[in-house]
Order: sequence, then structure tokens, then C-alpha cells
Amino acid sequence: MIRVPAEAAGRLSDAWRYSVGTGRIELALRRDYIDSLSLTQREIGFRHIRGHGLLSDGMGVYRPYDHKGARRVHHSFTYVDQVVDSYLALGIRPFLELGFMPAELASGEQTVFWWRGNVTPPRSHQDWAGLVRATLRHLVDRYGLDEVRTWPIEVWNEPNLPDFWQGADEKAYHLLYEVTAHAVKEVDADLQVGGPAISPGADDWLVRFAEFTEDREVPLDFVSRHAYTSGPAQHVPFGVHQTLGPASGLLEQFGTPRRQLQGTRHAELPVHITEFNSSYRPDNPVHDTAFHAAYLAPVLAAGGDLADSFSYWTFSDMFEEIGVPTALFHGGFGLLTHRQVRKPTYHLYAFMARMGPERLARGHDHLVTRHSDGRVTVLAWAPVDPTGETPGPDRHDVHLSIPVAARGEAFLRRSTVDEEHGNACTAWRHMGSPRSPRAGQLDVLHEAAEPARSHRRLPLADGRADLRLTLARHEITLVELTPLTDETPPWWDERRLLGGEAS
Amino acid sequence: MIRVPAEAAGRLSDAWRYSVGTGRIELALRRDYIDSLSLTQREIGFRHIRGHGLLSDGMGVYRPYDHKGARRVHHSFTYVDQVVDSYLALGIRPFLELGFMPAELASGEQTVFWWRGNVTPPRSHQDWAGLVRATLRHLVDRYGLDEVRTWPIEVWNEPNLPDFWQGADEKAYHLLYEVTAHAVKEVDADLQVGGPAISPGADDWLVRFAEFTEDREVPLDFVSRHAYTSGPAQHVPFGVHQTLGPASGLLEQFGTPRRQLQGTRHAELPVHITEFNSSYRPDNPVHDTAFHAAYLAPVLAAGGDLADSFSYWTFSDMFEEIGVPTALFHGGFGLLTHRQVRKPTYHLYAFMARMGPERLARGHDHLVTRHSDGRVTVLAWAPVDPTGETPGPDRHDVHLSIPVAARGEAFLRRSTVDEEHGNACTAWRHMGSPRSPRAGQLDVLHEAAEPARSHRRLPLADGRADLRLTLARHEITLVELTPLTDETPPWWDERRLLGGEAS
Amino acid sequence: MIRVPAEAAGRLSDAWRYSVGTGRIELALRRDYIDSLSLTQREIGFRHIRGHGLLSDGMGVYRPYDHKGARRVHHSFTYVDQVVDSYLALGIRPFLELGFMPAELASGEQTVFWWRGNVTPPRSHQDWAGLVRATLRHLVDRYGLDEVRTWPIEVWNEPNLPDFWQGADEKAYHLLYEVTAHAVKEVDADLQVGGPAISPGADDWLVRFAEFTEDREVPLDFVSRHAYTSGPAQHVPFGVHQTLGPASGLLEQFGTPRRQLQGTRHAELPVHITEFNSSYRPDNPVHDTAFHAAYLAPVLAAGGDLADSFSYWTFSDMFEEIGVPTALFHGGFGLLTHRQVRKPTYHLYAFMARMGPERLARGHDHLVTRHSDGRVTVLAWAPVDPTGETPGPDRHDVHLSIPVAARGEAFLRRSTVDEEHGNACTAWRHMGSPRSPRAGQLDVLHEAAEPARSHRRLPLADGRADLRLTLARHEITLVELTPLTDETPPWWDERRLLGGEAS
Amino acid sequence: MIRVPAEAAGRLSDAWRYSVGTGRIELALRRDYIDSLSLTQREIGFRHIRGHGLLSDGMGVYRPYDHKGARRVHHSFTYVDQVVDSYLALGIRPFLELGFMPAELASGEQTVFWWRGNVTPPRSHQDWAGLVRATLRHLVDRYGLDEVRTWPIEVWNEPNLPDFWQGADEKAYHLLYEVTAHAVKEVDADLQVGGPAISPGADDWLVRFAEFTEDREVPLDFVSRHAYTSGPAQHVPFGVHQTLGPASGLLEQFGTPRRQLQGTRHAELPVHITEFNSSYRPDNPVHDTAFHAAYLAPVLAAGGDLADSFSYWTFSDMFEEIGVPTALFHGGFGLLTHRQVRKPTYHLYAFMARMGPERLARGHDHLVTRHSDGRVTVLAWAPVDPTGETPGPDRHDVHLSIPVAARGEAFLRRSTVDEEHGNACTAWRHMGSPRSPRAGQLDVLHEAAEPARSHRRLPLADGRADLRLTLARHEITLVELTPLTDETPPWWDERRLLGGEAS
Repeated sequence: MIRVPAEAAGRLSDAWRYSVGTGRIELALRRDYIDSLSLTQREIGFRHIRGHGLLSDGMGVYRPYDHKGARRVHHSFTYVDQVVDSYLALGIRPFLELGFMPAELASGEQTVFWWRGNVTPPRSHQDWAGLVRATLRHLVDRYGLDEVRTWPIEVWNEPNLPDFWQGADEKAYHLLYEVTAHAVKEVDADLQVGGPAISPGADDWLVRFAEFTEDREVPLDFVSRHAYTSGPAQHVPFGVHQTLGPASGLLEQFGTPRRQLQGTRHAELPVHITEFNSSYRPDNPVHDTAFHAAYLAPVLAAGGDLADSFSYWTFSDMFEEIGVPTALFHGGFGLLTHRQVRKPTYHLYAFMARMGPERLARGHDHLVTRHSDGRVTVLAWAPVDPTGETPGPDRHDVHLSIPVAARGEAFLRRSTVDEEHGNACTAWRHMGSPRSPRAGQLDVLHEAAEPARSHRRLPLADGRADLRLTLARHEITLVELTPLTDETPPWWDERRLLGGEAS
Repeated sequence: MIRVPAEAAGRLSDAWRYSVGTGRIELALRRDYIDSLSLTQREIGFRHIRGHGLLSDGMGVYRPYDHKGARRVHHSFTYVDQVVDSYLALGIRPFLELGFMPAELASGEQTVFWWRGNVTPPRSHQDWAGLVRATLRHLVDRYGLDEVRTWPIEVWNEPNLPDFWQGADEKAYHLLYEVTAHAVKEVDADLQVGGPAISPGADDWLVRFAEFTEDREVPLDFVSRHAYTSGPAQHVPFGVHQTLGPASGLLEQFGTPRRQLQGTRHAELPVHITEFNSSYRPDNPVHDTAFHAAYLAPVLAAGGDLADSFSYWTFSDMFEEIGVPTALFHGGFGLLTHRQVRKPTYHLYAFMARMGPERLARGHDHLVTRHSDGRVTVLAWAPVDPTGETPGPDRHDVHLSIPVAARGEAFLRRSTVDEEHGNACTAWRHMGSPRSPRAGQLDVLHEAAEPARSHRRLPLADGRADLRLTLARHEITLVELTPLTDETPPWWDERRLLGGEAS
Repeated sequence: MIRVPAEAAGRLSDAWRYSVGTGRIELALRRDYIDSLSLTQREIGFRHIRGHGLLSDGMGVYRPYDHKGARRVHHSFTYVDQVVDSYLALGIRPFLELGFMPAELASGEQTVFWWRGNVTPPRSHQDWAGLVRATLRHLVDRYGLDEVRTWPIEVWNEPNLPDFWQGADEKAYHLLYEVTAHAVKEVDADLQVGGPAISPGADDWLVRFAEFTEDREVPLDFVSRHAYTSGPAQHVPFGVHQTLGPASGLLEQFGTPRRQLQGTRHAELPVHITEFNSSYRPDNPVHDTAFHAAYLAPVLAAGGDLADSFSYWTFSDMFEEIGVPTALFHGGFGLLTHRQVRKPTYHLYAFMARMGPERLARGHDHLVTRHSDGRVTVLAWAPVDPTGETPGPDRHDVHLSIPVAARGEAFLRRSTVDEEHGNACTAWRHMGSPRSPRAGQLDVLHEAAEPARSHRRLPLADGRADLRLTLARHEITLVELTPLTDETPPWWDERRLLGGEAS
Repeated sequence: MIRVPAEAAGRLSDAWRYSVGTGRIELALRRDYIDSLSLTQREIGFRHIRGHGLLSDGMGVYRPYDHKGARRVHHSFTYVDQVVDSYLALGIRPFLELGFMPAELASGEQTVFWWRGNVTPPRSHQDWAGLVRATLRHLVDRYGLDEVRTWPIEVWNEPNLPDFWQGADEKAYHLLYEVTAHAVKEVDADLQVGGPAISPGADDWLVRFAEFTEDREVPLDFVSRHAYTSGPAQHVPFGVHQTLGPASGLLEQFGTPRRQLQGTRHAELPVHITEFNSSYRPDNPVHDTAFHAAYLAPVLAAGGDLADSFSYWTFSDMFEEIGVPTALFHGGFGLLTHRQVRKPTYHLYAFMARMGPERLARGHDHLVTRHSDGRVTVLAWAPVDPTGETPGPDRHDVHLSIPVAARGEAFLRRSTVDEEHGNACTAWRHMGSPRSPRAGQLDVLHEAAEPARSHRRLPLADGRADLRLTLARHEITLVELTPLTDETPPWWDERRLLGGEAS
């Protein structure tokens, strides 16, 4: 038994909810996307949202034209405004990523993804700077300077990969960053700009990027990188399988930038992990499982010690990097499927959102917090075996002594997600894996996605509850203990319900 | 094991949903009432709604005034229109009950209920007839004759009780009925009028009423009565306890009118049980229990054989006959509490609403139906002991062989309500019986009110599934079996989820 | 022409929106009421709401019972919570009025209104104090102390009238106030309590009340009174006609308490006019007219100089003091009719809600304000003749020179309400005064209730617009001038719309 | 004066609302699109909707893959289902257009539009037939055969233009049609298939197409073509200007197919004008004007005599054939702009939707209908000069004698749209043509888009009203005359409003 202290060990960091990822920004025009984001914000409440393609052609921003023989540019925000208006209305702010290249401004034709984002440098850095300034001026004008100063601005995405940045040309990225950072600061010196948004496997880039900005006195308000733990893709039609490293590998990656910058002038800069997940593939069925929630639970519980944010890639399966999904469950990154079916990892986030601000305890299988009104909340999870060599233990016991500031009894509310509960994907497979579920089947899936719940009273002794939890394979569970005020009238006697004699 | 035949035994009667009861009509102006009715209609879908007080002062219909020295009457429908507009917008039609007496038209001052409905005869039968005609003409004018012809019109309520009709004066009721029925038919000969709306314990009234209408050639389009099974009230503060007779007593009462009218000219008249429940008290906690759902399950399954409708009294705890409720759970009649917490009996109705139109089998603990798309639906319930002498069996097995028109496997979806599941009242007692639950507590109660769900595959052999159900104490359970089409791709191999070798 | 200064003369007081009146609190359970309040809050945004009957029987708060031979009291908040939850959800706070007397606590049987509020002193001042404490403790417990401290608490209503307080017994009121104020402060010393809520015509009461509280050291956090300008009622069926004094009489009454308290210890106390209107009758058709809006316009524009609030009696026609209304337009107090048809006086408030925080000018027929973004807003109104001897001028010119911080042009948006525009009552009379309008007729009324709008450009010279407004009889008009940025592209040429030659 | 007969001349054809056009089907995933369609359906109520790109890559239907060395095809309906579910939920049905070519099935790389629809023939007609069958089978399976039989199925779009069909190869189109029609009928013989969906200027195609189907015994259930009246485009940046022919040119085109097929075996086939508008350009500002509504009014009034449907191209500015719009008003086809600002032509349709089923009269400037409840509805319009040589008359009088089955008076309700009223584009230009209007500006635009309304009484003589309407330039007006029942009480005397003496 672990005795949870009654004194808080500290605050629960908000880093887990600081940001979430999204498919390309243009998708924010879609209704299913907005329905999913609306649900997510109601039940989880992320602070910022980050995705690719803000400046790609689908958003229609960069619009050169000829008039009276001269070439000019309209910067047009028809869709940008629709998207950002939606975000703010849902209480979420952009984490701006500046990219990719408008075709008319691009120096080449290389594209990435099914939706063909151009990944070549600008043919004119001056015009690119103009585009950046016009975009930020418009945003400041429409939403106010105080608002836009809270939006981090990241330059490009994973320039260390040749798929994302032509030739993975580091020098060209440094130039792009320099031009961009200055353009941003011309609009307002307090706008926050950063990079280099690298993928795992190129850690040196961050060191050289920091040195470059120092050497050249280029503004830098934060650094960013990504984190993934999957091995190479083994393809099947419309899907992949991959090995996974242990979840601690994510924490290891989260911690890298601070370690790298220690002792430098940049040591105090905010660190944003602007993408993370297990697999980097949007067609890996592991994303849909209870395993995945249990795998990530310790990461969410501890990641805030290592970085200022870590942004789950992505909140919704409305995502098209490798094309339009061919089945409801297809291994997408989303916390939610199309049509808002909650996956187990969604519940992990929703459970985190119900934790309190005071952190009382944290262990390898649990996190305990307290709310200002005295409620104590426990998130517990079963250990997993990411090698797949064993199925993981089929039960796991957690035994905690919990301080509850009350006498008599506490009210216990438990929510459970495991292989059979809160697990629409399991129900979907039982149903025969219908690629296009009908209305009635979707009802069943929404129903199956609800966590199992139970409620009971727990006796208190000396201001403590003895909490024994048995977790099933791959279970994550949320327990809420509330000090109980008993208003049951003295004359209540359940035995008299059917007219029997009072005892 | 019971072998359910593949051929339908008949249609499942709609009598259980033909009508539902409501607190006095004026309450339909309330928001909580409309929120509850809206939920009820979405998930259950009653056809008609019946309550007291359409003509009572709170509705403001009968409005005498003096002008130029003469006394005249406005018939005013400000609130009637708001109520009926709401009903029709929610897809439910009035089952009109004409009563009680406007104070200005009353011959005496006797009232019933906390809200003081006047229960004395009219001081002028001519003015009463004028009120009836004006009301129906207005409804026909506003909603159309085709519509209003579908609304049964019942004359008064429980005139056999001196609390409801001054002196329980049978002759005075016959006169009231005669005047009213003629007034109704003056508006349109095809409007449907009936009575005598008697409470249990006065069965002779119905016989004499039928004879009276025959003798005097008074229009009579249906007969009506009520059914309850509770014994005398043992009072505690803000509550009562009562013994209950067996549920079969309700079916016995449902069947009485047809037996009484057999062989008479009225033998073919529709029979409406315009109120039924176990206890007739709105403060008996039995209404809030899983016991109650299991107790009534066989009544809903079989009642349609005996009467054209039986109207549960009432859909919502928004009800004030003995005053404003002092706690969220207070033993009210409602299927829903204030603020729309579903009770077990609500789920019984919601389960019935998911049964199919073809009745395949019915037993003492089950009802089996089929939908046109091949789904087979089973409602099963645990037997209860209404004497309270035993707690009832703590488990009950139901074993059925179900015909499913498919090969391979069926998809099974089960919803369970018992002492611990789908049972907000149990959670509320665990919580300390908070009389005015706060927002967070209401969330827990809504969550606790959800039935437990499970989903799995069931093998089929020779077009049959072997369904073994174990029910807990006081459980009602709904099982839906769907023929399964398996779209799982041939390459799917769960063992490869974590990158393992294909088998 | 009046030259509006470019420098603000001061802030526009919020007193006009600090509070609004409502029919008895129980009506807040109704859907139509909530729909109306929701609209009102969206378009006007009052801060507080005050009505009678919080403690009357319809709210079910005071609930004595016997148990084991002893008499005890439950204080029950089933409905109070539903109402206050609704208010806060709509962004409006209670202005608590403590009254009337629960029947079981009353010393007599005298009632007021169709809905029978008991207006007799408590039979036990100790039990009354217990009721007050229990109510406030519950509210503090449920909504938090910080919240409830912002709710003024007024003791009783118009005790100077024998209809509202048995015998208009001043000494008995002082006693009630003393007991109540102490009970309030026992719950928390910072709760705000006040009185005496007198009607016009008893000004001395306020002086003696202030002296009494000083002499006895009774807590007093604000003083309150009411203001009306109508003469005696001339009855017709379901209506009255009354003469009206000039609107300045309202301002005169608003100013009385400060004048009366000048030089006393209470000179700095907040003054709340907790009810005001022209006529005090809920069946005077003047409330439904454009005349009424124009009559009150100068009162809203200037009242904030004289009192801390003045609360329009009432926001909605959902009001039953003299019974259920018999027609849609019936002279009710409401800014809105049943079913949310906006009256001209509603628009007056909605126009006020669009005024800016800086007051630039105020005259006998206009008020000019500015928003922080540079928009200048003008409310103008036609003078009225409240004697009815003349119809009032059929046109009225307002000519203002308005400072607008821009070059070139301003965008002008004008909204008009007069006898023919924004005037559903006029359309209703054209329609034949249908007492129960049908759905289609309600659509027309909602449409007819929309103000007339026009939009144009206005040239600026030296940072000023020359604004000439012609107002029709009984018109109120809102003009908004916005500095204009012209994004029209240089190639735009309307003459080419149909393919014509460029000019 | 024109004396409108009291006897109906016939039914008002529904052809004007049978179908409406849409930007490519993929856009139906967007929220703004659905918001616009939802408004349109609520206020207009089209029956069918037709757009391009159902089978284009953006919808993700045709999905070849390799498995165990073989190439196979998934037909995937993830997005098709989301779109069709949305349509049906809004009460509108698909008018299916089969096209364009999935890249993986295409024989070439030619594309049309900014969004790059492939317009080359299939590389395998067998695979194309498989795609058609799979699509229709899926739709039948999901939505039911009865439903899908009501959806016309059109083969390709404007094959007579080389932009839309590689080489405008007529023979290749005939082959495509033949293969497609047979594939459709293989799914169900009662599905409705047709073509050739030609643009104006290729009338012979229709004759040869009809002959071809007859010669080859190819199924043909309807014929279709398009109609436009604009001249060549004169480009300006982000816009064009074009001359327009007279509106009668549209009626002329509507009538062509029936004339062409007269006397042939196909004479009785339904004729669908599957696109029509004035200009065929989505950047012609004429679409946004009051002129456009007045220009099209006679077409909507009379088109039903000539064809079974004529489908306005398109309901919303959410349309991307030439790219993302750069300003709110940009000359788009839409009845609605982005963000649901109603254009004058939207009102023309909304006015049509309020006409009655009985047609009483039709003239060069008016259409008169009657509803079953006796309301008489008049749509009147001012004549326009499409040459632009004159601005059109600045006023136009319409004088009608209207039969109204009532005595005394009628209630008149008039809605007006002209250069200044119901005309958000005019307000937008006054505002400075803001390309990205802010929230407050959008409010003004929505307000400015409301038609002007007036209401009054009109005397009747011998069952007739003398209706004199003066129309402003480019005005369309809707007048509704309702028989009036006067419920004004005899004691009502407006002169007593302010307490004056009764007369």
C-alpha cells in the first residue's frame, strides 16, 4: 500500500493540454472536424491547436495578379478567418505553423502528402517575408494584439526530413527562419517565434539551430521538436504494423532540448514538443486501442516535468496525409474517429482533464491529485508490454491510502476503459468491422465508447480511505473521491419500501 | 430452454405507448417539463398525453366580464395554445380530460390537491356546455378537424371518489357526461368522447354508466378506468410506504371493462386505462427503484391484449398534487425526475420502444420480437416478490433459442438495468441523498442512470442462436441480435498489432 | 445644429441596465419566460432581476412537518435552485426580494394578486429569521459567497400599501426589517441588505425608515423605492386607460431618495429604484406602443445621474398579478409579449445596449456616445405629448455635428422604431387583433417587430459628419457612425456590370 | 388594371425547386456549406441537389490496392456517406452526376478547374462499370431502393466542351453513356439514368444522343442540358464583366429539348435543365445584385411550362472552380455568400417558396397564386434592361384586382427587395467593400439582407381587393393577402390610450 501524502507535492502541470495536433488547417472548414473539436473542447479543453498547411494553396492566401501591366499580390484571408473564428469560438487558440509554400511563390515542384503541400524554398525571400507580415498584420488587426501575442509561431515543419523540406537543406532552413523571424518581429516585437520543429533522429539540428540564432542575433522565443517511438512500417493494404519502443522513450525525447540547451543562453527558453505519438503513421491500428491509452498514461502524467507542452498528433481522424480513410477505424491518429466516436486515448485525455490542480502523488501506475473543493482524483493504469511478446498482465492491483478531508464516508465514482469497456473499436470488430457503419451501428459505437461507471461509498478512518483497485488488461481508470455530506433523513428505512414493518 | 418460433405469433400491440399521464396541464408551461417530455418523446415516443386541470383557473380559459351592464364570457386560450403547440411540436397529442371546474362557473368551493382544483358541478350546465363547445371549436379551428378527431375526450376524473367529484354523486356525473357529450358532438359528430374515468374499487359505476348512455342515447365512443395495486399509505415525513399487490392485479383491472361490457351493445368500444401505476401516491419511493421496472415489465408485455391503452401515471416528477417536491428523489410518479434523470421504469419504456413489430414469443420472464430488417429483440426481466417478504432471487436464468436469419454469427448488444446499473437512485443514496444536487452531482446522476452495456458475437447454428442470460436481482435487460456481415479484411491479424510476425 | 464635442463629457452610467423586473419568481420555471429572458440577455444584457414571491408557497421553501411528535421545518430549495441556476446560466443575477409570507408562517390570511401572495407579518419572527438565514446559507453554499455578496437583498415590497402589507403597518415593517437585516448579516456581514421598497406617494416612509435604522443600529446597505407616473385606472373589460404625467416625473422620483438623505449618515448609500414604469397596471395598452418608447427615452438617457439603478417593471408579459392574459397584446408590462414579440420599449433598451461607454453629448432629444473602437452612436427620439391632447409632432428634426476620427467618409447604419416600424402591435391591430395568433401570424408579428434599417455613406469634413435626422411621430432611432476603410479595388466600375465599356 | 380570375388557371409547377446546383460534392463536407444548405432548405426547400466530382479523387471512392500479388479495388464511401447523410437529414436528395474520372482509372492527365477534376475517359470501361455498380449498390444498400429510385442519375457533365471531356469526343461520350447506363440498370432496372448534360451551343448533340440510345437500345430515362445567357468574359483581377442576353433566352433554351424530341420515341421523356444561370462565371458581380433577381423572376414564373426542372447554378458561394474567393462578395453563383448572407436572388427563390399551389394569373411582371387556406400571393417584379444601355425604369406600377374570399378587409403583408432593401451587397459597398468582414460587419450585412416589410389593411369590395403596387428599380416584391377576421373588442378606442374621454 502506498500512503498518499495529504500535502501537495506541487502543481499538476498543464503541459499535456497546452496544445493538440490537427490535420492540415484547411480541414478545419469541415463540419465533422468542427463537431469533433467542439466535443474535444467541451470534455478536454486544449489551449492551442497546431497543424500544417496554413499557407498552402488550399487556404488561398497568396494571390498574385496582374493589373495595368504590373504584378501585385492580394493576401486573402477568406478561409483563414473562417478557421480562426471557429477556433476562438471553441475556446482554442492557434499554435501557428508557417508553411508550406504557395505554388506561385515556390522555387520548385516537390510536394508532400496526398494533398500535395509544396515543400520547396520560396523563389523570393522578400515575397515570403511579405506574406508572413501580411498574415500576421491581418491576424493582429482582426483579433487584437493581446490575443495574437499568445499564439506561438513556429517556422516550417520537420525541415530535417527531405520529404518536408527540399533536400533537408539545413542552411536553407536557417535562412528561411531568419527571414521569417524578422518579418514576425516587424509586425510586433512581442509576437513569439520559434523552431526548428525537427523530427526525432536529428537532434544535432536543434543545437546548431540555437547556435545559428545566437550567432546571427535572430529572434528566438521557443524551441520545438517532435517525438515518436515506432519502428519501420510493415505494410498491409490500407494499413501498417510497427514495433514500438517503450513509452519512456517519449519522455526521453521530451527532455532532450532542455538537456541540449543547458548552460547556453537559451537554457530558459520554453520547449514545445509540437508533435508526439507512438507511431508516426496515420494507418496504424494501435492508435485505436486500449493498449494505446495505457501506454501513454505515464507519459501524460510525467511529461510536464520535461517540456512546456507536448502536443498529441492529432485530435481527429479527419486527416488526409495518405488519402481519404477507407474505414471508420483505420488506425488514424485521432482521439476521435470521423463522426465523433471516442477512442480509449480520448478517454485518457478526458480523465486527465478531470484531475485537480494539486498533485499529491505520482507512481509508475498512478497519479493522485486534489481539487480546491476537496475532491481527490486518482488516475491509475495497467502496465503494458510494448514488445507484444506478452499480452501484458491480465490483472493489476493498485492499493492506495488516500487522504480525504471528511468524517464517516466518501463517495467513490469510477470510470473504466479497457479491452471491453469504453472501447468502440472492440465493439466494431465484434460487429464485423463495417467500413461505413449505418446510423444504427453508429449509435451502438457511441454507446460502446462510453466508459463503464460504478459508484459506491467508501469508509474513512482517520481522514483516509483505503482504495484497492483491480485493473484489467490495458485498463485506465479514473477514481474520484468526494467528501460526503449525508442528508438521508432519520426516518428512511429501505426495508419499509414495500410496506413492511419498521425495524 | 425455450425454442422461440421463427414465425410471428402476432403483432406487438402499441397499447403501452398509446398514452402517458402528466401532472396538471398548466405544468406543461414549465421548461423542465418540456425538457423531460422532449427527451421522453425522443427515446420512447408516446402517442397521447393526459392530465388534469385543462379548464381549471390556472389555465385562464373561462373569463366572464361585464360590459354595458351585461355579463358575458370570453373563452381565452392563451395558455391552452402554448401547451398544445408544445405537445404537437414534440409529436405527442392531447388525450383531453375535461375538468376541473372554473371557480366562476362552480357551484361550490370544494377543491382537490395542493393546487386547489375545484371539484363541484357547474352552477349552470348551459354555461359548461358553452365552455366545452368553445374549447373544442377553438382547437378544431387552430389545429384542424382531422387532427382533433384523433384526440380522445374524457369527461372528468374519478367521479366515484368524493375528493374528485363533490359527494361522488353518480347521478350528477351522468348529467355532466350527458351535457358534455352532446356539446362535444355539436362541434363535430366524429369527435371521440368517453368516460367514466373511474378509480379502482367502483367497478359497478362502469356498468351503470354504460347502461345510462344506452338508455338515454348519449354518445359514447370509448370507456375508461384506472388501475393501481397499492395498499393503504403509511406516512413518514414527505413520504409514504405501502404494500403492493401482485402485478397481475393490474392486468386483471385492465381486463375488467371488456368483461363487463361483453354481450352488450358496447362490447366493441375501445377501452382506455387512462391511469395506472403500482402506488397511487406521488411520494412513494418504490417508483424510483429497479424493483418497480421489473414489477411492471410483464404488465407492459401483456397489457395490450386486454385494453386499447394503459397510460402510465406519469412521465415526469414535475407534479404538485401534494405540493412542491422537497428532494430530487422523492417517490414521484415520474419516469424522469426533475432535471431529466432517467429512472429504471423509464428504461423499461425505452426498452419497449426498441422492440420490433412482430411478436415471436412471450413468457413469464421474456418477450421476443423481430424488426423488419431481421433484428431480433429480447426483453427479459427477473421475477420480483411484491410482498417484500423475500428480497427476490439474486439471480435468474433465461435460456432461449432464437431464430436469426443469417449464417455464421450474430452481433449481440445488451443493455442492463438493475440495483446497481442504470439506477441513479442507488447512486444518489450512495452520495448521501442530496436534496438539491449541484451541477457536478447531477452529472454523476445522469451518468449513473445509463444502463450498463455489453457487446459480443454469438455463434449461429442452423439459423439459431443459443441465448443464455443471467439476470441480477430486479434486473430488466434488453438484448438485440443483429445478423452480422463480416467486412474484416483477410489480412487483418490482431497479433501483428505491435509489429509482430504474421502467423 | 448642435456641435457634439470630441472630448467625452463622462461615462454613460450603467444604472439603466443594473436591474429589470419580473413577474413572480415562480414564473421563472416557465419555458416562455426563459425564452424571453434568454433573448433579452442576448440583446440587452441586464445585470440583475427582481420579482416578488421568492418565499411564497408556490416556491415550496418553508415546509414544516411533524416527526416523533415534534414540529420541525425543512427549508426546501427544489424550485429556488432551478430558477437561480437558470438566471446565472443566462448571465443575470438575482436582486433578491424577501417575501411574501408562507401560509404556514403567516399570522393572517390576507393575500394580494390573482395568485394570492400572503401579505401578513410572520406569526413568529424567530421562524422568519430562520427562514431567511436558511435561504441565504443555502444560496451561499450553492453559489459561493463571492457571488451572493453581489446580490442586493431587499426586504418586502411596498409595505406602505395596505394591499401589500397588512394594514400598511409601518412599525410592523420596521420590526420585520430589523429581524431580517440581522438574520442576513448573521449569514455573512458583507451581504447587502436594504429597503423600504416603497411605492410613490409615501416619501416620508423612507426618511423615517432611515432614521429608524440609524437609531436602532440596524444594518442598511442601500435604500430603495418605486416610481410610476400614471393617474387612476379607467376600466374596460380586460384593460384600463390612465392619464400619464410627464416623463420628467420619473426622474423627479428617481432623485428623491438622495435628496431626502442628503446631509444624513446615509447620504452615500446606493439608491435603487426597484420598480419603475409609466402605468402601474399590467393591462394598460400604452405599454405596447411606440409612444411609450419615445416617452421613456429621456428617462433612460438621464436616470443614471440620479440613482444607482432603475428597474423596468417588467421584462416579459409572462405575468399574472391580475390573472392570465386573454390576448397576445393586452397592455402588459413586458418588454416582450408571450412568444417573444419585441415591443417598441424593448428596442429602446436594445438601442441603449448598443451605446458606447463614453458619453459625448446629451440633449432633450438625443444622446451621443462613443465606443473604444471609434464608432459613434446616437440615440434620438421624438418629443411626445403625454396628455394626449395633441398627437405629438408628426415629424421632428435633429441636426448634429458628430466628431468621427477618420478621413473621407463614415458608414452610417440607422435603426428606426415608430408607429409603423419595429411595431408589432400596429401590425397586430391591422391583422384584426387576433387574441391567439397562429404560427403564421406569429411569424408576421416577429417580422413586423424588426426595426426598419438603412445604411449609407456620410461624407466627413474636418473629422466631422453633418447628421440630419428626421424623426416620425413617436420615433426612436439609433444611428451608428463607423470610420470607414475603403477596400474597393481601383478597377471596380459599376457601369461595367452588364458588360459595358469602362469609362 | 388586370382582373385576376377567381378560378385557378392551373397548378403552379414545382420545376423551379426540383433541383439546385452545388460546388463539387466534396465541399458538402464543409460546415459553412451545410449551414447554408440548412438555411436554404428551411426557407426555400429544394428537392434535389446536383454537383460535380462525386467520383473524383477528393471523395476517395476508387481505391485500388495490391494484395498477395493481385491488384484489387476497394470502393470506399467514407465521404460519400457523410455527404448523402447530410443531404437527407436536410430534406434534400441527390441528383447524381457520375464523374469525373478517378486518377487511377483515368486514361490521361487532363484536368479541369483549380481543383483538378480529371476529364479523360476511363482506361478500362469494365472497371468504370464496376465503379458505377459498386457505388449504386452501396447507395441502395444504405438508403433503400425506394429512396434511390427517386434520384436521377446523370452521366458526366458538358461532354461537348473539350475542357470537360477530353477532345469533346462525342463517340467516346456515347460509349461512356452506354456502359454507364447498362451498369446502372444492372443494379436495378428502375433506377433513372440520363444525359447528355450538354452546355448551350451544342444542341445537335442532344438529337444525336437520343438517336444513338434508340439505335443501340440503351436505357434513357430523361434528357438533360444547361442554359446560360452571358457573352464573352472581360477580365479584371478576380472578376469578369459580361454582356447578357434577355432572360427570355433562358426560357428558349429550357424549351429546346422538348422541341427537338417532338415526334420521336423520346417525346415524353422528362427534361431536366441541370444547370442554368445568367453568367456561367463564378466571378461575375451581376450574381450579387437586385438586377439579377428581377432578371430571373419571369424565368422562375414560367420555366415550369417548358421543362421538368431547371436547376439554379448554385445555392452557395462555397465554390472553388477558379480558386478560393478573395472577398465576401466576389460575383459567385451562390444564392448565399459564405457565412450565409442572403443575396437578392435568394429572396426571389424564398418568395417563390411562399407562393400557393393554385396559379390564378401570370403576366409579364407578376404571378398570382392561392393557398388552400384562402391566402392569395402575388409576386411582382420590375422590368430590367439587360443591355445596360438604360438603368431600367426607376419606378414601375402594377395594378391588379385580386379575388379574396372574405368580407370587409384583407390583411396585406409586403416584402420588398431592390437596390436599397434586402440587398446586403449594396450595404457592403457602402461599408467600403471589406474583403474579410468582421463579426460586427457581418451582423450589419445580415441585417441589410432582410427584405423591407410593410403591413396594412386593404378594403374589399365584392370579394375583390384593388392592389396598386409601385416598384422601385430592379424591385421584386411579394404581397400576401389574407382574409381578415376582426377580433378587436367593441370597447377598443385608441383615443383613450392616454386616459382621454371615450368618444
